[in-house]
Amino acid sequence: MPVTIPEPAVPPRRVLMGPGPSDADPRVLRALAAPVVGHLDPWLLARMGEIRAMLRTLFGTENRATLAISGTGTSGMEACLANLIEPGDGVVVGIHGYFGERLAEIAARHGGEVTRVEAPWGERVPERAVAAAIDRVRPKVVALVHAETSTGVEQPVEEIARAARAAGAFTVLDCVTSLGGVPVEVDRWGIDAAYAGSQKCLGAPPGLAPVTFSERAIAAARDRRRPVAGFYVDIALLERYWDEPHAYHHTISSPLVAALHEALRIALEDGREARFARQRALHDELVRGLARLGLGLLGAEGTRLPMLHAVRVPAGVDEAAVRRELLETYGLEIGAGMGALKGRIWRIGLMGASCTPNHVALCLAALARALGKDG
Amino acid sequence: MPVTIPEPAVPPRRVLMGPGPSDADPRVLRALAAPVVGHLDPWLLARMGEIRAMLRTLFGTENRATLAISGTGTSGMEACLANLIEPGDGVVVGIHGYFGERLAEIAARHGGEVTRVEAPWGERVPERAVAAAIDRVRPKVVALVHAETSTGVEQPVEEIARAARAAGAFTVLDCVTSLGGVPVEVDRWGIDAAYAGSQKCLGAPPGLAPVTFSERAIAAARDRRRPVAGFYVDIALLERYWDEPHAYHHTISSPLVAALHEALRIALEDGREARFARQRALHDELVRGLARLGLGLLGAEGTRLPMLHAVRVPAGVDEAAVRRELLETYGLEIGAGMGALKGRIWRIGLMGASCTPNHVALCLAALARALGKDG
Repeated sequence: MPVTIPEPAVPPRRVLMGPGPSDADPRVLRALAAPVVGHLDPWLLARMGEIRAMLRTLFGTENRATLAISGTGTSGMEACLANLIEPGDGVVVGIHGYFGERLAEIAARHGGEVTRVEAPWGERVPERAVAAAIDRVRPKVVALVHAETSTGVEQPVEEIARAARAAGAFTVLDCVTSLGGVPVEVDRWGIDAAYAGSQKCLGAPPGLAPVTFSERAIAAARDRRRPVAGFYVDIALLERYWDEPHAYHHTISSPLVAALHEALRIALEDGREARFARQRALHDELVRGLARLGLGLLGAEGTRLPMLHAVRVPAGVDEAAVRRELLETYGLEIGAGMGALKGRIWRIGLMGASCTPNHVALCLAALARALGKDG
Repeated sequence: MPVTIPEPAVPPRRVLMGPGPSDADPRVLRALAAPVVGHLDPWLLARMGEIRAMLRTLFGTENRATLAISGTGTSGMEACLANLIEPGDGVVVGIHGYFGERLAEIAARHGGEVTRVEAPWGERVPERAVAAAIDRVRPKVVALVHAETSTGVEQPVEEIARAARAAGAFTVLDCVTSLGGVPVEVDRWGIDAAYAGSQKCLGAPPGLAPVTFSERAIAAARDRRRPVAGFYVDIALLERYWDEPHAYHHTISSPLVAALHEALRIALEDGREARFARQRALHDELVRGLARLGLGLLGAEGTRLPMLHAVRVPAGVDEAAVRRELLETYGLEIGAGMGALKGRIWRIGLMGASCTPNHVALCLAALARALGKDG
C-alpha cells in the first residue's frame, strides 16, 4: 500500500498554565535529550537511587519503598489501589471532584466494595464524615485526593489518616498535583501509600509517577491471598527492580529518569520551604489580578490550592473561545473544566517551571485582552 | 532533615547492543528535547493521529484501534491480555522463553485458566501442538511471542492464528522485538491483538507501547461482563482519548510522542522491505563474524531472529566479566541471559539505530579483544 510520511513534528511554542503538564525548565529538557542508556546500566541504577532519596524528602517519608512507576499519575493511582485491594475488601473513598470519582472507579475495578463519602465539587470532604464512615465500615483502605485537580481545592487529611490507622485501615493519598507545591508529610500524617505525577509541581515531563508505600502497606501487599491483577504496577516486582540486585521487570525510560532527576534537583535546590512560599506568593498575586478582572474562584478562601485555580467563567462568556484565543495569540494553554464543571470554569495552573511572575503577568494580560478588559 | 542534592545526571556515552533499548537516532533525540506540550493540545493530537497511521503500516493492519499505551512493552502485553480475558476464560499460551512465561503469568493474574504449550528455550513452539491445544481447550484467547527476546528465536504464527480463529478464539501476539525489524502482518495472519515496544527495532526511547486491536477484539472488550481491572490499559478508554473528540484519560508524554513520531518517520523513509533487508544483511554479517570468533548461537539456523542474537558463552569464559569489559572499555552494552539461560548466553541486539555496519564491526572487535582473539 502507498505510504504517506508525515512532516517532522516540530511543536509550537507553548506556555503551559493548565492543570499539567507544566513547562519544563531548560535544564530538564537538556537532561531529557541525552542519549538513551539501558534499563540495567549501572549508571542509570545509581541515578534511580538518587531519585528515591530526593522523592523521600519531598514526600516527607523514610519509606524504603519509594520509587517511580513507568507511567503517568493514573498509573500511580492504580498502583496504590491495586496492590492494597483484594476482591471484597471495603474501601472508603472521599470524593469532591473528578479524581475522587476516579479513585472510586479504580477501587471498584480491583474488587473493592466502595463506600463513597462525598462533598459538592469545589468543597472539602468533611474529615468527620470520612472518620464516621471508617468507624462504620471498618474498611481495609481509605482513599483521598489531597489536591483535587478538577476543582482547585485542598483536602485536609490528618484526622482521616488517624481514624484510618485507628481502625487498622490503610490510607491512600493522591498527591499528583500537590507534591512539590505544598507540604506533603507522608510519615507525619500516617499515609500508607501516596502517588504523584512528574509533570505538575515537580516540573518534569509526563511519564513517571512517583509512589511511596509504608512498611505496613508493603507487608499487606506481600501477604495478599492472590497476586495483583496489574503485573505492570505490582509493587513487589517494582521493588525488586529498584532495589539491589535490580531484577528485570520492565524497560524504564532513561530519558525520563534523567529529566525527573534534574527536576528534583531543581526542587531541592529551591528548598521545600522557599518553594512553597514562592508558590503561595504567586498564587496570591494571580488571585488578586483575577479579582481585578472581575474573575472569582471556585472554592472558599482558605481551602484553595496555590497551584491550581478553578476560575469561574463569567456569564455570557464563551469559555472555549477564550481558551482558543489564548492558545492562538500567546501559545498560552489553560485548562477547561471537567465533568460537572465542564464549561463553567477555567483551570489555571502555576506548577513547576510555570510557577513564575512571568507566567502570572502573561496570563492576566492575556485574559484581560480576551475578556475585553485591557482598554 | 539535611538534604543532599546529587550531582547532575550526565549519562556516559553508550553503544546499545543489548536486547533493547537501542541507540536513538540524533533526529529522535532532537524531537525528544522539544518543549513539552499539553496532552489535549490540538497540535499533539494531530501528531498522534499520524502515529496511528504509521503504526498501521508497520503492523500490516487497517485496525482502527491502533495506538500507543503510555508505558513500556510490558504495559502493552498487559493491555492486550487484560482487555480480552475475564475470570475463568481459557487461555492457550505458547511458551518458548521468558516472555512466553510472562504471558502465562499475566493471563493468570487476570483470571485466565492457562493451558501451557511449551518448547525448550531456544526452540520454536510446534504450531501443530498449539493448534491441537486450541481444538482441545476451545480457549477464548491464544497468546504467543513472535520474537522471543530471551532466546532470539522467531515463532511462526499463521497456522496457530488460523486454528484460533476457526475455534472462535482471539490471537494475541507479542511483537515487542519484531515490529520494524521483520515483517509483522496482523491482518493477513489474522491476529486480534498485538503489542510492541518503542525502544527496540522502532528506535525510539522506551516509554510507549504500540498496540493494535481487531474490530472483533474491540467488540469483545466492549461486551465484557465486567470492566477491565486495569483502568490504565482499558482499550475502550484509550480509544476515547485517541479518537475524536479526545476525552481525557491520562496525560500522555508529548516528548515521547514526538520522539516516536520521528522514529516512525525514519522507519517509513527506509521503507519496510529495505529495512528488513538491511536487518537480514547485518544479521548475516554479525553471525559470520561471531563464527570466526568461534561463537555459536542458540537456536537452529532458519529459526533465528535477525535483530536479537543469543550467543553461547564458551566454556571457561566469565560472561559477566566480558560484559563489564565491553561496557568499561567501549561503553558497549550487550545483554545477559535471562531465567534458565542466565550465565549461558549473551544477547546481542541489532535494533533501530543500533542496526548499522558500525555496530557490527565494533561489537566483533570488542568481543575479539575481550576473548583474547584479537592478536
